[in-house]
Amino acid sequence: MIILKLGGSIITCKGEVQPTLNQENLDRISQEIRNSQVKELLIIHGAGSYGHPPAHHYQIGSPLKDEKDLEQKREGFCVTHQLVQELNLAVCRALITAGIPAAPLSPSSFIHTHNKRITDFKTDLITEYLDLGLVPVLYGDVVLDRDLKIRMAVLSGDQILQYLAGKLKAERVILGTDVDGIYNRNPKTHPNAQLIPLVTPEDELNFLEGAHTVDVTGGMGGKVKELLRLAEKEVESQIINLNTEGLLERALMGDKVPGTWIKKTK
Amino acid sequence: MIILKLGGSIITCKGEVQPTLNQENLDRISQEIRNSQVKELLIIHGAGSYGHPPAHHYQIGSPLKDEKDLEQKREGFCVTHQLVQELNLAVCRALITAGIPAAPLSPSSFIHTHNKRITDFKTDLITEYLDLGLVPVLYGDVVLDRDLKIRMAVLSGDQILQYLAGKLKAERVILGTDVDGIYNRNPKTHPNAQLIPLVTPEDELNFLEGAHTVDVTGGMGGKVKELLRLAEKEVESQIINLNTEGLLERALMGDKVPGTWIKKTK
Repeated sequence: MIILKLGGSIITCKGEVQPTLNQENLDRISQEIRNSQVKELLIIHGAGSYGHPPAHHYQIGSPLKDEKDLEQKREGFCVTHQLVQELNLAVCRALITAGIPAAPLSPSSFIHTHNKRITDFKTDLITEYLDLGLVPVLYGDVVLDRDLKIRMAVLSGDQILQYLAGKLKAERVILGTDVDGIYNRNPKTHPNAQLIPLVTPEDELNFLEGAHTVDVTGGMGGKVKELLRLAEKEVESQIINLNTEGLLERALMGDKVPGTWIKKTK
Repeated sequence: MIILKLGGSIITCKGEVQPTLNQENLDRISQEIRNSQVKELLIIHGAGSYGHPPAHHYQIGSPLKDEKDLEQKREGFCVTHQLVQELNLAVCRALITAGIPAAPLSPSSFIHTHNKRITDFKTDLITEYLDLGLVPVLYGDVVLDRDLKIRMAVLSGDQILQYLAGKLKAERVILGTDVDGIYNRNPKTHPNAQLIPLVTPEDELNFLEGAHTVDVTGGMGGKVKELLRLAEKEVESQIINLNTEGLLERALMGDKVPGTWIKKTK
């Protein structure tokens, strides 16, 4: 089974004040998935401009102050979930239109966290969806948290990805982002930055120690850390740029494509 | 805790070829709930013109014939779920707009059936939503079925209602429909039909034996049977007409309103 993560920056227009869909990307990506004829696929998408602004505005996940604050956060929980579910509906609509049997599983309906981390959740139903030939679609969401100091938390698509890929022993993870992969320094400020084709857990210490000076691409540090943990569990990942037409289709088919692999060396 | 069922015929325009929302009803009902200031509420809504036509078209729940049929039904599962989720999004949007902290729980994400019946599902998370002061919203949906002859089934809002009201020991159930309650004969064909204010489990045999001649209002027979089972478990229900302005608000506040009660006599 392949797990595909569709970054929020790919399916939405990040930085917009209003939640805005990147319908063009969504339709093309759906068509590429369809063309690849991949068997056994699970999709996780980010929340992008739908989820981040309200979750931030209502400070979901920060300690509860008083009854008034709880009331505000309750509202924030509902509003944020409503928006990410709107996004999920749009993602699934595009997938279904392209002929992919996409069936959403809503994280807040069956996952909770303890101090913002998943400790365990039942994956039986997800496995049954896969067995039936359906494509489960999960997403970054707000969930209930059992830490009584916060009670509600943001659960990122990346955390779901890491949990599921490990538990379901994914054959491969594809992290679809808006950059080509991991660079030895920030390509936005260093024109000579070079793409690193392979990162291994053995690199980890150097890589992360150097992360302050040898820049990793914006926001990618945390993701790489999670993927390195997966590599330790024998789950291979590749980071590719979903703004590049045709790349996802080829990656799903197993072709060699530009990007960064994160895996153990044999 | 009160469980409120919003019938599909109230929140959608049943009989329409295209899924059509009854936005006016939805806004008014949301406002009535808000005005009632009810504490601890759980809402379940039907699928109406969003769910019934596709579920019927794709024959979800009928025995699988072959691989081609499975493929068709997979598509039907996705399309039907997509539509009921659209409806759920609209219901929650109306509730949130009225100031109710509505948080949907998607049945297909955590409930499965065995030959079309719920045998068991975890309700911990629902209880946690309630404890936090949120209003969980569930709905009629398509779900995976563990009977290998069908594998997918329609799960009605009424079945969820019966299961949850019993398991969570609801204080009261309000079944909001488009009729005033149970009549001694079909009021559409018998102008002298009389509303029955109280049905008890002791009436059950006569009532159901007479159901062929003494008409119960269209489609109500099965619902009454389920509610009588709840009455046996000490859960009281009332059937009221949600097309009548203000009735729901008063019912939620505990006022005496026209309709039919289904409960044990003391």
